[in-house]
Amino acid sequence: MKIGVLTIGSELLNGSRLDTNAHWIAKNVIPYSGEVILKKTILDSDDSIVTALDYFLKSPVEMILITGGLGPTHDDITARSLYKYFNDEPVFDKSYWEKLKKRFIKKGFEVSNLNRSQALVPRNGEIVPNKLGTARGLCFNSGKIKIIAMPGVPSEMKSMMNETILPMIKRSSNISINYKILKTTGISESKLYKNLKGIINDNTEVDIAFLPSYLGVDIRVTCKKTSSFDSVLNDISAVINNFIYSTDEESLEEVVSNILIDNKITISTAESCTGGKIGDRLTNISGISSVYAGGVIAYSNDQKINILNVKKEILEEYGAVSEETAISMAIGIQKKFSTDIGISTTGIAGPGGGTNKKPVGLVYIGFAYKDILRAYKFNFSHDRIMNKMITSQVALNILRNNLLNQINN
Amino acid sequence: MKIGVLTIGSELLNGSRLDTNAHWIAKNVIPYSGEVILKKTILDSDDSIVTALDYFLKSPVEMILITGGLGPTHDDITARSLYKYFNDEPVFDKSYWEKLKKRFIKKGFEVSNLNRSQALVPRNGEIVPNKLGTARGLCFNSGKIKIIAMPGVPSEMKSMMNETILPMIKRSSNISINYKILKTTGISESKLYKNLKGIINDNTEVDIAFLPSYLGVDIRVTCKKTSSFDSVLNDISAVINNFIYSTDEESLEEVVSNILIDNKITISTAESCTGGKIGDRLTNISGISSVYAGGVIAYSNDQKINILNVKKEILEEYGAVSEETAISMAIGIQKKFSTDIGISTTGIAGPGGGTNKKPVGLVYIGFAYKDILRAYKFNFSHDRIMNKMITSQVALNILRNNLLNQINN
Repeated sequence: MKIGVLTIGSELLNGSRLDTNAHWIAKNVIPYSGEVILKKTILDSDDSIVTALDYFLKSPVEMILITGGLGPTHDDITARSLYKYFNDEPVFDKSYWEKLKKRFIKKGFEVSNLNRSQALVPRNGEIVPNKLGTARGLCFNSGKIKIIAMPGVPSEMKSMMNETILPMIKRSSNISINYKILKTTGISESKLYKNLKGIINDNTEVDIAFLPSYLGVDIRVTCKKTSSFDSVLNDISAVINNFIYSTDEESLEEVVSNILIDNKITISTAESCTGGKIGDRLTNISGISSVYAGGVIAYSNDQKINILNVKKEILEEYGAVSEETAISMAIGIQKKFSTDIGISTTGIAGPGGGTNKKPVGLVYIGFAYKDILRAYKFNFSHDRIMNKMITSQVALNILRNNLLNQINN
Repeated sequence: MKIGVLTIGSELLNGSRLDTNAHWIAKNVIPYSGEVILKKTILDSDDSIVTALDYFLKSPVEMILITGGLGPTHDDITARSLYKYFNDEPVFDKSYWEKLKKRFIKKGFEVSNLNRSQALVPRNGEIVPNKLGTARGLCFNSGKIKIIAMPGVPSEMKSMMNETILPMIKRSSNISINYKILKTTGISESKLYKNLKGIINDNTEVDIAFLPSYLGVDIRVTCKKTSSFDSVLNDISAVINNFIYSTDEESLEEVVSNILIDNKITISTAESCTGGKIGDRLTNISGISSVYAGGVIAYSNDQKINILNVKKEILEEYGAVSEETAISMAIGIQKKFSTDIGISTTGIAGPGGGTNKKPVGLVYIGFAYKDILRAYKFNFSHDRIMNKMITSQVALNILRNNLLNQINN
């Protein structure tokens, strides 16, 4: 089903707010065979709405999803404009009005006549329930095209989509789409393409899209035929399995944390160049406290020596950014915090501090677990914040790979 | 000047990529008296481009800014469509082609005939230079309306805007706009409004907009008349000065780091519930290593006792999430890392771990500096990740306020 998205509101145009609603809708209609082919943002004025609707209704869209402007204030003109546009004499929904009034009183708010407009219902259309707010969605029809208006508040829009509109799209398209995101890290888009080219060419009925970011490449697989879908997923896994860290849209820290928690393996972190980012990411996961003891942000050499017991001679001979220091830090934290695993980072995040021998972006990650003592060397070439982020991603992936190796052997 | 923004590309419609170009343009034309009144995203097809241009040219926009589809591949049809739409027979720019070829060879790329299209120049328009890439911008005229196409790569688009198009907007609008963002934290939007209501009502020629996020509220002040602008800025500062942390669009960690660096005040962090986020944010700032010694992520009680020397009795009597523990942690890290300041966080980030007495969102921030020993108590009510982020923001603001107090006294 071809969909047009119309977002309404001056705050979306004047740079006050980044419009994420349209992006969310586009992503979430795909599994239900929806396809956004047009996106438009306009000011909250009657004229703009009329012109936009004219434009959409002339385009090949089969459904128009509108967000914004359903609130009770004078700025919120979407409902009024739609009633006018579709020549609809709305009906006053007395029982909803009574409910609304009770809700306001319960919350200690004043009931204003302005709110009465939220109890109006299209005579020739339908209402879309809103579990989270007072502004219900409005649904109009123009020939076979459905026009649905939702509030601009992201949580309310999402709940309405999930509860009512996505099922509606699924029903009316009558096609069920198989859909999976394979999240990868540690392999570039071009290498992925090279590895998967054969599969892509042999299965033209399956849509395989690469969605790259600097933390990895998500592979989106969509297909109507379940048999082809399953076999392509198997084929892809066979080729690049090591690089896939999630098929359930989890984050890398979620995957790593779950392995640690499930296997009761404890861990501590010794971070220099990442400055606490690995700890921050791990502690984003609820339940991590059963395995994550904590860590040291050893930003200065003093702390590497005093807290992590890195030998002064190692720092003098090899430097703070070296394989030897990375390993010492990992062992140091592992011992100090009495955890199974110790992981460390040391590097030159930039922009300053680089030399010919040790340029900005040089990073060592140290790993200590049972009899494994390893340092991994990388040369990143981004800005400071990006280098920190990528280092944390690579460190988490090193954890994942080593843990899986240990558990599977 | 009224501006329409047209972004082109299927990746912007199918949920693969969030469109941030249009938002950046909207924000950045404001100081040059530009105003985006219409935003549209379309598929990369000839038909869509024609319909969109028809639509824009019928609207009240005075300039159309297009991004995307200027590359050399078969998908990149923006240039071709524009030449056709404006009935323009492009001219081949031989000297640019020679430059392009040299550039490719230098980089070890193959020179393809596909790239020849990037050396075409409108016969009845202009070229917009591109310092960062090979695809130059194209500028066409339709009556008084300028239509400018730029590449979709954000860095190239931004450089083109800054170098050529923003100055062009400024020149043609002939109005100079005074523009300032006052970044605040620690005060809600409604309290700000209450405090500034008088100023807002007395100065209708000044536009004062609140841009709230969960880390604070940015106040955007714009005005054509310099005298009113200056006096309003002074008036606002007089009322809410304590809450404004930047008038130069800096981040809070940048502001705090600069105070620390300028005054050579050293600091260390002892983080429990924030899990490393404060260290991470501080180390995002280049140059911080001269004052930030590092920190401890003391996620478990053992580490609070062993590394930070928090007394076992304090943990037993008051609990890990308490004023007493927060202060002990701050003193502990200050001593352990021999820094001027020690700052600590301890709290219940959620979703689990809350009790009636100590609910999810309860957070203590400890601060130790000279003779100041303080714990600050907060009750946040967001999800885990948000609670961590807000705690780090509040901690940085506590640092800022205490530092300013000390320095100014």
